Amino acid sequence: LFYAPVRVNGFVCKNPMEVNADDFFKAAALDKPRVTNKVGSNVTLINVMQIAGLNTLGISIARIDYAPLGQNPPHTHPRATEILTVLEGTLYVGFVTSNQPAPNRNKFLSKVLNKGDVFVFPVGLIHFQFNPNPHKPAVAIAALSSQNPGAITIANAVFGSDPQISDDVLAKAFQVEKNTIDWLQAQFWENNHN
Amino acid sequence: LFYAPVRVNGFVCKNPMEVNADDFFKAAALDKPRVTNKVGSNVTLINVMQIAGLNTLGISIARIDYAPLGQNPPHTHPRATEILTVLEGTLYVGFVTSNQPAPNRNKFLSKVLNKGDVFVFPVGLIHFQFNPNPHKPAVAIAALSSQNPGAITIANAVFGSDPQISDDVLAKAFQVEKNTIDWLQAQFWENNHN
Amino acid sequence: LFYAPVRVNGFVCKNPMEVNADDFFKAAALDKPRVTNKVGSNVTLINVMQIAGLNTLGISIARIDYAPLGQNPPHTHPRATEILTVLEGTLYVGFVTSNQPAPNRNKFLSKVLNKGDVFVFPVGLIHFQFNPNPHKPAVAIAALSSQNPGAITIANAVFGSDPQISDDVLAKAFQVEKNTIDWLQAQFWENNHN
Amino acid sequence: LFYAPVRVNGFVCKNPMEVNADDFFKAAALDKPRVTNKVGSNVTLINVMQIAGLNTLGISIARIDYAPLGQNPPHTHPRATEILTVLEGTLYVGFVTSNQPAPNRNKFLSKVLNKGDVFVFPVGLIHFQFNPNPHKPAVAIAALSSQNPGAITIANAVFGSDPQISDDVLAKAFQVEKNTIDWLQAQFWENNHN
Amino acid sequence: LFYAPVRVNGFVCKNPMEVNADDFFKAAALDKPRVTNKVGSNVTLINVMQIAGLNTLGISIARIDYAPLGQNPPHTHPRATEILTVLEGTLYVGFVTSNQPAPNRNKFLSKVLNKGDVFVFPVGLIHFQFNPNPHKPAVAIAALSSQNPGAITIANAVFGSDPQISDDVLAKAFQVEKNTIDWLQAQFWENNHN
Amino acid sequence: LFYAPVRVNGFVCKNPMEVNADDFFKAAALDKPRVTNKVGSNVTLINVMQIAGLNTLGISIARIDYAPLGQNPPHTHPRATEILTVLEGTLYVGFVTSNQPAPNRNKFLSKVLNKGDVFVFPVGLIHFQFNPNPHKPAVAIAALSSQNPGAITIANAVFGSDPQISDDVLAKAFQVEKNTIDWLQAQFWENNHN
Repeated sequence: LFYAPVRVNGFVCKNPMEVNADDFFKAAALDKPRVTNKVGSNVTLINVMQIAGLNTLGISIARIDYAPLGQNPPHTHPRATEILTVLEGTLYVGFVTSNQPAPNRNKFLSKVLNKGDVFVFPVGLIHFQFNPNPHKPAVAIAALSSQNPGAITIANAVFGSDPQISDDVLAKAFQVEKNTIDWLQAQFWENNHN
Repeated sequence: LFYAPVRVNGFVCKNPMEVNADDFFKAAALDKPRVTNKVGSNVTLINVMQIAGLNTLGISIARIDYAPLGQNPPHTHPRATEILTVLEGTLYVGFVTSNQPAPNRNKFLSKVLNKGDVFVFPVGLIHFQFNPNPHKPAVAIAALSSQNPGAITIANAVFGSDPQISDDVLAKAFQVEKNTIDWLQAQFWENNHN
Repeated sequence: LFYAPVRVNGFVCKNPMEVNADDFFKAAALDKPRVTNKVGSNVTLINVMQIAGLNTLGISIARIDYAPLGQNPPHTHPRATEILTVLEGTLYVGFVTSNQPAPNRNKFLSKVLNKGDVFVFPVGLIHFQFNPNPHKPAVAIAALSSQNPGAITIANAVFGSDPQISDDVLAKAFQVEKNTIDWLQAQFWENNHN
Repeated sequence: LFYAPVRVNGFVCKNPMEVNADDFFKAAALDKPRVTNKVGSNVTLINVMQIAGLNTLGISIARIDYAPLGQNPPHTHPRATEILTVLEGTLYVGFVTSNQPAPNRNKFLSKVLNKGDVFVFPVGLIHFQFNPNPHKPAVAIAALSSQNPGAITIANAVFGSDPQISDDVLAKAFQVEKNTIDWLQAQFWENNHN
Repeated sequence: LFYAPVRVNGFVCKNPMEVNADDFFKAAALDKPRVTNKVGSNVTLINVMQIAGLNTLGISIARIDYAPLGQNPPHTHPRATEILTVLEGTLYVGFVTSNQPAPNRNKFLSKVLNKGDVFVFPVGLIHFQFNPNPHKPAVAIAALSSQNPGAITIANAVFGSDPQISDDVLAKAFQVEKNTIDWLQAQFWENNHN
Repeated sequence: LFYAPVRVNGFVCKNPMEVNADDFFKAAALDKPRVTNKVGSNVTLINVMQIAGLNTLGISIARIDYAPLGQNPPHTHPRATEILTVLEGTLYVGFVTSNQPAPNRNKFLSKVLNKGDVFVFPVGLIHFQFNPNPHKPAVAIAALSSQNPGAITIANAVFGSDPQISDDVLAKAFQVEKNTIDWLQAQFWENNHN
């Protein structure tokens, strides 16, 4: 009997007879600093695409590097809650609650985190981390409650999509002139997930 | 024996002995047009806060009104997929995929919907609906896969949170001057969920 | 590398690289009246079989047409809760609770719904909708908490199955003579899901 | 600090500090024959109402007694799949599939089970067990995939609800005269779950 | 169009068009005593490997035979809660709670079960059953809340794995000399699941 | 209206109106080395007991310290998969598969991890980490796919439970003399979760 490679959740499943330790392992070099991008950060996510054995197991891990004054800009994870601890430096972090009935509508909850502190970003909420130190980088380890959490960087998705969203729509949504939207859409929106 | 009111998922649970048809009913007037807001829309969501019997059942329904050239601006539902059908008028709709590996990064998928058409917005992705007709309103019925789906209007959460997010953070995230952020934060970000 | 079409939950999964807006869209004509069946109803369900992108997303939507005095007869959805709103006309709706300890055993909860009203039918319970108006049709939009909710019309499943259930079993279960069962099994049990 | 009794899923939760073996135990006497009802069966279900420690754990167990020619009449479990093994006697069992596209619509799958055989009834589908032996009783052990599976005996829910469903609705649904429905509704519909 | 056999959760899925009663059936002979192993037990588990139709349905069933003074030794089910009833004889059963804060740490909850009694072993906890009668066998029926619950016999996994776990690690973990571990690893660790 | 404190999953739920950033924060000092126990390790777990806002969100995080030649001894998490990265030193790690059909029965999968490497321990399987360096400590960050994963240290649960498991049962299960069990049960089984 011959089986074609089968993908569960889009990923190839191995014959259980042939599973070995390497299917649960990645030499991920999470101890090594990474070059940060234009907004001053870099997310090294180890998910099911790096470790096939994670499929269906509901967890992943990431190292995040922050340049001095760098940030992991406002984003959401559509399928995961995130828990984060600071390894080096200081981070100013926060998330915004959803459109709840006033007076709780879009409340911004924030905190300054020092080395060893832990913070939680609930599933689907817009959140960010910012390194307020102008001289020193920061490093965090984050874990996410999905083997494929997804990430949506707000600015990139709104102003850097391919193709672009209509500037009529965005001008009204953001209460600005269309040429402001056009200018924003002309920028280079660099991903910090590599 | 006396029981205090018990809240499951934050909502009061009724003694099963006392449940009746009204716990599964709402005279929601979803047939009536609503006054639209500043961006030209109004979402009337019937969720577990309106119908207590929905608790744990994983579904809710909404009527959405669109003024001529109105929009339900870019937003996400952190806990639900949405399926929508057009009752009146025409809608230009779309969503943006997440930070997937290139060339699929932040793909914008859009469609013009006519009366009777159906479209799906997957859980957690940024999406919008826009009424391109300058003269006539549009109406849709949408259903969501949670009794408490949540809604995060991107502009409101990013620029209209309480308190405000640091303009240092937002200026860098959106690649604009701080005074542009300050101007945006000074606007009135009106909710369209009532 | 070659991949055979892979079915998840029995449906073919597309390569994520090739997904486009049409995978989330259906020109379903839910605005158009349908011809009703023998019991005076027609359910037009848009589920994962019509929109492949719904797979795993846990929602579907339907238009239901009711002839004057027509009904969507007693049925269950084995995998979904239903939420319904009336677009046109009036509906008399209800569901029966399960074999709970007396005095709650098999309670019948019912309500008359007018245009714009909303009602919920919890997962797996026997429910129906009836148009009490002898002159005018009625129309509803319903949403279900599964991309493949299933529907079991009680009379059709019990008396119209293929092959037939033993009339010995059914006669005793329904406390009638075997020839009553035989007569029922000889009827044409028409589906109202097309 | 004082806590009122808290009900999760409607059941009181014990302080974890005070949990003991009796919270996971029931002297259920599942080895003892029970008196069967009018249709010749008796279901002794051990669920979360009998064993509080079952709460949230997703399983329950039952002994089912069948008189000679007795049956556990057509019913569904709205929240559970059932797996059954025969301890004594012989059972003729079956279930009917849902309104799938023809030719699979309402297929009746049946089997004669002897001692030691195992059969599965998928969640939400209408099923029954019948003891074809006119002289000897039968006994089965069944397990269900919920701590509170629910049971809906079709005839009881349709014809024996409190209050009764309108005979106009039922006459059309079952294609019979209203006086047949009235006669059915006047019968005593005895529960076999005690 | 040709489809390769597709495995969901590792098991081949049948075309729904070709499903029949045998896909939900197993002539499992659960009424027949089995030969017990070295520790005096035998578990005959009917799971998705025996009944393909169980896939995704979340339940399985087993007969367990116990020799006089035999035991189903300390083990866990990584993916299921177990509910058990005694068919013949007497069983001394128990489970140990997890590393909770003292004084609840590793509490041992036990009970003597007679014929017809029911007991629950919560998911993932170490548990056992022991037949204290030196002259008579015992028999139980158990159900598990997964179609593929898994079983980890503690002694076999720790001392009988292939390859062996380092005796340095185990000697320290179990606070014994390395030669005690070596002696244990040299034993034959026979499985009682057949 | 007065509400008693409500516990969901056993933990008190706060009124959403009063939630603030501290409900998602813990000054956990995960950057600080901890004193290790008798087997040379210390697990500092930040779960829902430390951060109330984690409730229902399905994730937690831990720092693990290993003395030279120290180990986090064989244990399971009944409700979580674990993903781990090494911050300092080297770890020899592994897990044992369940009682699968031969030849896969109780396979031991192991790996030596260096700084920055990532490894996954699937839910419910027995696993350990060992620091093979006789001179230097090691440190890891681990994340778990539950807000309350539980931990069952095998030796402690089997030989250190309160009250003790019968030595008759354990002697036969582990194929040793009863006095070996008695000696093991007389040891001090120290927890490494504080």
